[in-house]
Amino acid sequence: MTPEDLVEIELIKRLKYRYLRSIDQKLWDELESCFIPGATARYGGGRYEFAGRDDIMEFCRTSMGATTFLSSHRCHHPEIDLVGSDEATGTWALEDTVILTDFGLNIQGAAFYEDRYVKVDGEWKIAHTGYRRTYEEIMPRASIGGLKLTAEWWATDGRSTLG
Amino acid sequence: MTPEDLVEIELIKRLKYRYLRSIDQKLWDELESCFIPGATARYGGGRYEFAGRDDIMEFCRTSMGATTFLSSHRCHHPEIDLVGSDEATGTWALEDTVILTDFGLNIQGAAFYEDRYVKVDGEWKIAHTGYRRTYEEIMPRASIGGLKLTAEWWATDGRSTLG
Amino acid sequence: MTPEDLVEIELIKRLKYRYLRSIDQKLWDELESCFIPGATARYGGGRYEFAGRDDIMEFCRTSMGATTFLSSHRCHHPEIDLVGSDEATGTWALEDTVILTDFGLNIQGAAFYEDRYVKVDGEWKIAHTGYRRTYEEIMPRASIGGLKLTAEWWATDGRSTLG
Repeated sequence: MTPEDLVEIELIKRLKYRYLRSIDQKLWDELESCFIPGATARYGGGRYEFAGRDDIMEFCRTSMGATTFLSSHRCHHPEIDLVGSDEATGTWALEDTVILTDFGLNIQGAAFYEDRYVKVDGEWKIAHTGYRRTYEEIMPRASIGGLKLTAEWWATDGRSTLG
Repeated sequence: MTPEDLVEIELIKRLKYRYLRSIDQKLWDELESCFIPGATARYGGGRYEFAGRDDIMEFCRTSMGATTFLSSHRCHHPEIDLVGSDEATGTWALEDTVILTDFGLNIQGAAFYEDRYVKVDGEWKIAHTGYRRTYEEIMPRASIGGLKLTAEWWATDGRSTLG
Repeated sequence: MTPEDLVEIELIKRLKYRYLRSIDQKLWDELESCFIPGATARYGGGRYEFAGRDDIMEFCRTSMGATTFLSSHRCHHPEIDLVGSDEATGTWALEDTVILTDFGLNIQGAAFYEDRYVKVDGEWKIAHTGYRRTYEEIMPRASIGGLKLTAEWWATDGRSTLG
């Protein structure tokens, strides 16, 4: 590993962070720019598989588009290996929380991602992304008396109403 | 981006990690050293705004000073851009948990930070920090039968009493 | 700090990520390769102390070996300092969740690690690892009506059964 390799690795991390931020902020055009046209994805620990950027984006826009779907996808522990000058693989540890205010449900889980990246016209893009879950659990919000949302990105402009 | 840029970026990350550790360990003097005198902050997703390091520190010391206020503030996904040689911006994904043992409450949330950093006398400092929440929720601890704290930084010297 | 230092720091981060992934995926041989023979560890915020890799591994294999023990150990905020060319120290912020399906319990906590690393035959290894907890709490899963696991690494091959 050289200092120049670290620059490439940092650029790949930036790609992943932009991808994750775009999901949680619902910036679908920015999310789309993270993939190559032929990208593949494997979500839900393999429950959902998509071939092609259009299919991935259709799934994301449809399943996570509502502003009552509040999510926090966080990726950690990047183990990124450069494979030649324009290809790389990456393992990441995911933790995600989803709050479905419409359905009164919280979902949280942990997983490990196995990604593949390619450099196209000087810019790193996602060629494949997919994860396998360590665990995932679901909970009806009504089961916890007094559980209350005090801030939401859209409904309160991200401002806390606590205190 | 050059290897030399990466050194500056790493130093800015270190500043942020020191800032976050100082909050959760209640090291107020160390926290104070992270800011320039004219720093501004926007906490609670914009509910609280402060101008000047003294006002920020007064808020931190007062609102988070009690050892019955147990917190875990974790920042992820650094997207740091150098703007010239002595200024930088940074976006971070926050997840935080706060346990108020006095009030019997748990609070947890997610947010995105937008920070500004400046280099003064060769050392990076926070010029502005602030976040907008994706969500925040509060829960009375008594709503979950059998929920029990088994370690606390101050009350048990950080030692687990489990098992 | 130089770009060459950053390479060493990245290699140490990679060691830590491999260590954490090995724990959550129960890859005990890979975990063992992270330690020097004389490594020491301090888990449970000091409740458990081990001297020697064999003792550490015996504890890990025994206490976390069951596939009904589902864990997510995530380390953040690396503050790594090189001490000469073959030694380094590191502070990390931990968040961990453990689900014991056999016992119907969830445990979650936060802590700060203080590690020591050494470079042996060109490879970084853990010489000491240990943490002190900010908090740790335990919860009977039966206390939340409708709380349900929808994916497990081993029981469902990491595949979600949701939806």
